[in-house]
Amino acid sequence: MQNYVFGADIGGTSVKLGLFYSDGELLEKWEIPTRTVNGGVHVLPDVAQAIMTAMERHGISASQVVGIGIGVPGPVDDSFTVNKCVNLGWGVFNIKERMNELLPEIPHVAAGNDANVAALGELWRGGGRGSQSAVMITLGTGVGGGVVLDGKIVAGRNGGAGEIGHMTVEPGETVPCSCGKCGCLEQYTSARGVVRMAKVMLSQCDTPSKLRRIEDFTSKHICELAAVGDHMALKIIDRFGDYLGRAMSYISCTVDPDVFIIGGGMSKAGNIVTDAALKYYRKYAFHVSKETGAAIAMLGNDAGIYGCARMVLK
Amino acid sequence: MQNYVFGADIGGTSVKLGLFYSDGELLEKWEIPTRTVNGGVHVLPDVAQAIMTAMERHGISASQVVGIGIGVPGPVDDSFTVNKCVNLGWGVFNIKERMNELLPEIPHVAAGNDANVAALGELWRGGGRGSQSAVMITLGTGVGGGVVLDGKIVAGRNGGAGEIGHMTVEPGETVPCSCGKCGCLEQYTSARGVVRMAKVMLSQCDTPSKLRRIEDFTSKHICELAAVGDHMALKIIDRFGDYLGRAMSYISCTVDPDVFIIGGGMSKAGNIVTDAALKYYRKYAFHVSKETGAAIAMLGNDAGIYGCARMVLK
Repeated sequence: MQNYVFGADIGGTSVKLGLFYSDGELLEKWEIPTRTVNGGVHVLPDVAQAIMTAMERHGISASQVVGIGIGVPGPVDDSFTVNKCVNLGWGVFNIKERMNELLPEIPHVAAGNDANVAALGELWRGGGRGSQSAVMITLGTGVGGGVVLDGKIVAGRNGGAGEIGHMTVEPGETVPCSCGKCGCLEQYTSARGVVRMAKVMLSQCDTPSKLRRIEDFTSKHICELAAVGDHMALKIIDRFGDYLGRAMSYISCTVDPDVFIIGGGMSKAGNIVTDAALKYYRKYAFHVSKETGAAIAMLGNDAGIYGCARMVLK
Repeated sequence: MQNYVFGADIGGTSVKLGLFYSDGELLEKWEIPTRTVNGGVHVLPDVAQAIMTAMERHGISASQVVGIGIGVPGPVDDSFTVNKCVNLGWGVFNIKERMNELLPEIPHVAAGNDANVAALGELWRGGGRGSQSAVMITLGTGVGGGVVLDGKIVAGRNGGAGEIGHMTVEPGETVPCSCGKCGCLEQYTSARGVVRMAKVMLSQCDTPSKLRRIEDFTSKHICELAAVGDHMALKIIDRFGDYLGRAMSYISCTVDPDVFIIGGGMSKAGNIVTDAALKYYRKYAFHVSKETGAAIAMLGNDAGIYGCARMVLK
């Protein structure tokens, strides 16, 4: 008899759902809105309802469901206690216990922070395939991260593991990060941060650049112009790589992963981004770890549901 | 019937041995010289001989020995393959297989890098007692480290996990570290590094200090003078704390441990050292991890044998 797994990657506006065969193959994926009203009280019942509907649609009985994996946009500890999700209005509660109340016939529930779960998904079926440990760095609006060692998510005592974006890489910085500290990696290497840094660099010199002619340029413009040899864009990407590569070297001095996985909007520029980061990574890394590679994330928005399934299938 | 465990912490000049009851209580400890001649070919036979002699002395049969844990002064991977120990003259070989040849009646052998093993020992019976995860930072002649998560040593792909001393905390440094890079944590926070930094700081100002009157002052002098309020010594310890605290914040952004354990010669100064580090740790750490504490290592040179026993008993 065929067995199945459900993954539910809960985001601030929608929940991504995946139905997988127990060998890890994706059978169906879909989305439902995240109803954050009333302290997010509807979110998990909506997920349970979506799972029941899908089971009916495919004629799957509860005994055929190995379990449900859930990605949460906030800290989750090893016993699956959620410690506040501001985006959802959630306080502190045990998500496994809540799901067991909603779907008592499917007792096996696992949960993790969404960034960590995405890292697990990429390690399993994406850019980190074939490795046992990886650190994923997501260069999006902010900079997030996930640490997976020996196939297991590292959450940390306070759910702070993988908060790569808040490494203080520029102690002398006076402009504050959204977190309140100054000099965080996110301020230089997120899609938004690299634009801010570019504007500062452009204001400090007269080097001609096509960037000067684009009002409200984005990180995509910077990467595209660097790819065609715009001198200033190359300088910006070089400094971006200096910060990111140094942060990666700190990660290696701590856990020495098999591979780095670079995801998020900035990663769409591909080699431009990884080459710049690895150039400086090799400069700053301890010699034994110098050859560690950086892969581009492959699963995009599906990384979360794959990671959810993986949490259950291990 | 009482069961026992042996720990053998191999150093460049001596092997520290420990005989433990299987509940973790230390029954006897002793040392034998490390014979590094002929590519270190005698080291493991000597360890095996010492274990057999101790078994005879205490009337312990092989069936009463749960296993042997070994600390190695070099990289060891998860399958117990040693990847060169320059201090011992060792190349690449599997240390478990070698021990099984020497003592076939005691099949259970575990091994790890000495710094990681010491961290495990401190977590189990020393400064980190009661925690599940810890990062130990050893401030000795160099700066070493060990990472233990969920009671398990993190070795890393290349045995580079825990190489805290080689985080590049001062990218603009022009003086090279012993590793060849410039700006490593070790250059500012090891017993030797803090003296070097102090001399640079003293040469750059005229602030009076008792340090100026001590020829060839040591890190101990700096800590002692800081404790009695010598202004310059306090400034040096403050900068030491800035570097160390920042490195600790990078560790928290990666694995968010339960506790830091500070060991090595510098740790004998106690609160002077941890207070300086935590002051800056709290400045640089991501907010969720700000309250993580730093304990002073308690087991001294015995941390290794305790960690060796723990590897076997888990």
